[in-house]
Amino acid sequence: MTLARLNNLTASLRTSNLDAVILNPGPTLTYLTGVDFHLMERPVVLFVAPGHDPVLVLPELEMLKVDMFPYKVQAFAYGETPSEWDAAFRKAAQALGLDGKRIGVEPRQLRLLDFGHVKAGAPEAEYPDASAVLTGLRLKKDKAEVDKMYRAVRIAQDALEATIPLIKIGMTERELSSELVIQLLRKGSDPELPFSPIVSGGPNGANPHASPSDRKLQAGDLLVVDWGAGYEHYISDLTRTFAVGEVDDECRKIHKIVQEANAAGRAAGRPGVPCANVDIATRDVIEKSGYGKYFTHRTGHGIGMEGHEDPYMRGDNMQLLEPGMAYTVEPGIYLPNRNGVRIEDNMVITENGADCLSDMPREIRVVG
Amino acid sequence: MTLARLNNLTASLRTSNLDAVILNPGPTLTYLTGVDFHLMERPVVLFVAPGHDPVLVLPELEMLKVDMFPYKVQAFAYGETPSEWDAAFRKAAQALGLDGKRIGVEPRQLRLLDFGHVKAGAPEAEYPDASAVLTGLRLKKDKAEVDKMYRAVRIAQDALEATIPLIKIGMTERELSSELVIQLLRKGSDPELPFSPIVSGGPNGANPHASPSDRKLQAGDLLVVDWGAGYEHYISDLTRTFAVGEVDDECRKIHKIVQEANAAGRAAGRPGVPCANVDIATRDVIEKSGYGKYFTHRTGHGIGMEGHEDPYMRGDNMQLLEPGMAYTVEPGIYLPNRNGVRIEDNMVITENGADCLSDMPREIRVVG
Repeated sequence: MTLARLNNLTASLRTSNLDAVILNPGPTLTYLTGVDFHLMERPVVLFVAPGHDPVLVLPELEMLKVDMFPYKVQAFAYGETPSEWDAAFRKAAQALGLDGKRIGVEPRQLRLLDFGHVKAGAPEAEYPDASAVLTGLRLKKDKAEVDKMYRAVRIAQDALEATIPLIKIGMTERELSSELVIQLLRKGSDPELPFSPIVSGGPNGANPHASPSDRKLQAGDLLVVDWGAGYEHYISDLTRTFAVGEVDDECRKIHKIVQEANAAGRAAGRPGVPCANVDIATRDVIEKSGYGKYFTHRTGHGIGMEGHEDPYMRGDNMQLLEPGMAYTVEPGIYLPNRNGVRIEDNMVITENGADCLSDMPREIRVVG
Repeated sequence: MTLARLNNLTASLRTSNLDAVILNPGPTLTYLTGVDFHLMERPVVLFVAPGHDPVLVLPELEMLKVDMFPYKVQAFAYGETPSEWDAAFRKAAQALGLDGKRIGVEPRQLRLLDFGHVKAGAPEAEYPDASAVLTGLRLKKDKAEVDKMYRAVRIAQDALEATIPLIKIGMTERELSSELVIQLLRKGSDPELPFSPIVSGGPNGANPHASPSDRKLQAGDLLVVDWGAGYEHYISDLTRTFAVGEVDDECRKIHKIVQEANAAGRAAGRPGVPCANVDIATRDVIEKSGYGKYFTHRTGHGIGMEGHEDPYMRGDNMQLLEPGMAYTVEPGIYLPNRNGVRIEDNMVITENGADCLSDMPREIRVVG
């Protein structure tokens, strides 16, 4: 499977204006190799150039991982002395004849650290952005990938259902986040979670990217829980918003509006429709309700091995949806210093519509 | 506290050849601000230039975090359309008059994505490596930092002690890893663990950076557990190696050698001694035993907010240890395709020696 993926990449490179791409530890490297590397101070870089076996530069202490590759790679290992690392990168570039050529990079993943060593090994090369080629690789999920995403959704839903009875007024966001993580692992998530759950009550919920704090849950709070599981490197990313005890009428109202917006967004996706339409569908509902200026982010992002990947559900994104594309629908309303609501589901485009992988109740539920 | 840290940084910048530094989400940004940002596809960058309030570029949907800053920052927020992001970076560079100046970068943390936007905003600037200035900031831990590291060690030790009774022959590495994570959270670790535990049995233990697999623990395995907790952004990073049921004489022998090497390494650190001495101390023990070629990595790394940071315990590192420096001592022996041993502790240099923060028994223990 990974060999087929590698072949797809080299085929794309042949029709691109790139002579090679370089990849450091992250989802694209794992997608192409099935092997996990840590992102750390010792650089690991895979060079892929058509017509050659891939070349890997890595620390000697990770050499056993070369045996885990599903195809032949030429490895150049370096020792523990950083001043010697550039030599390994030079050998790698020379093995592929890359100096002076066009070596594509992945800007979202590659650090200046890794890039600096590659450049030292091939100083005359050009380093254009290879995102278009690399994004295309992982953009449309096959059945095996969707099955894993579905498992990741089930694990996440089961974990939150098991956590809900534990929610009590007076518990802190951090405590609740820890309980949820425990349940994610109990239900079978990969030990490396895709992201740390967001658990934010009351005014903290008005910050879409809050980190769990020591604030205690209070009656009257809306409680935003944005969480996900990993299953064999594929992830889920869901959000539900709860009422802690009795909440006021406006809280119930904005929850209902967001629920309707979420439904409209889920209904909007199908092959041939621009991503923008999904965003417009949710935003219309919220704008018509008068809360438009409190929906401060796009409607969703692609999902697969990463929490945020292509395609993005933005009002200006005219990219057409195609079968196999997977994304989130996650409208929200955020009232600064008061409360927030978000409801997020995970979608996959099918031959004639879109499947929603998640089915946990979206209605407001009282907890605590 | 974060204001004092910011002042330290600007003082360092005044005596450096840098006009500013830029920081993206990661430990240095958190150290200087106390605020957490996610590393994602939307770039967040803090510009620090002496004589000015810091300048922050961030997505509009994160604007509420600006209120969490402990000092005044000038914020430039951008919307959801990526083509408009460069304009925010241009305003930031203009506010500080940075185009054409020397803007220091943190190569280990900064991605080409972030860097590209900063460069678009200040195309005539130079971007030298600011690691020396930035590393100096976090190199020596104060008492409050050491206290947090100590708490992170206690949490980790308590978690592993609670996990040991659950270890059974036939359980997979992944299952054991999940149980350990659960215990880490139960004992009070930050929900975002510093790293995913390494749990590797038998031949997998011969790979120092193995990821937990579906391999089942077998009688006769050595079992390497490399784990840590987080406490208010400070971390622990420990390793213990266990015997699963009865192990053979060589396993017991290499465990004893590594235990002696670990003790020698812990005894070697004090103010004024080069980092190299710590490495030499552990390596001597292992080399004299005849297993030198199976100790394939340096003896340790600095520790604090990151798992791997300065100073590094390498045989060629003549940097002198100073009070407040914190690091790991983690010698190992790795017998390819058979077994591995590593024993890791966390040290802090004091006025006249070195404290070991960790005290969990290092002797081989039989589990399963």
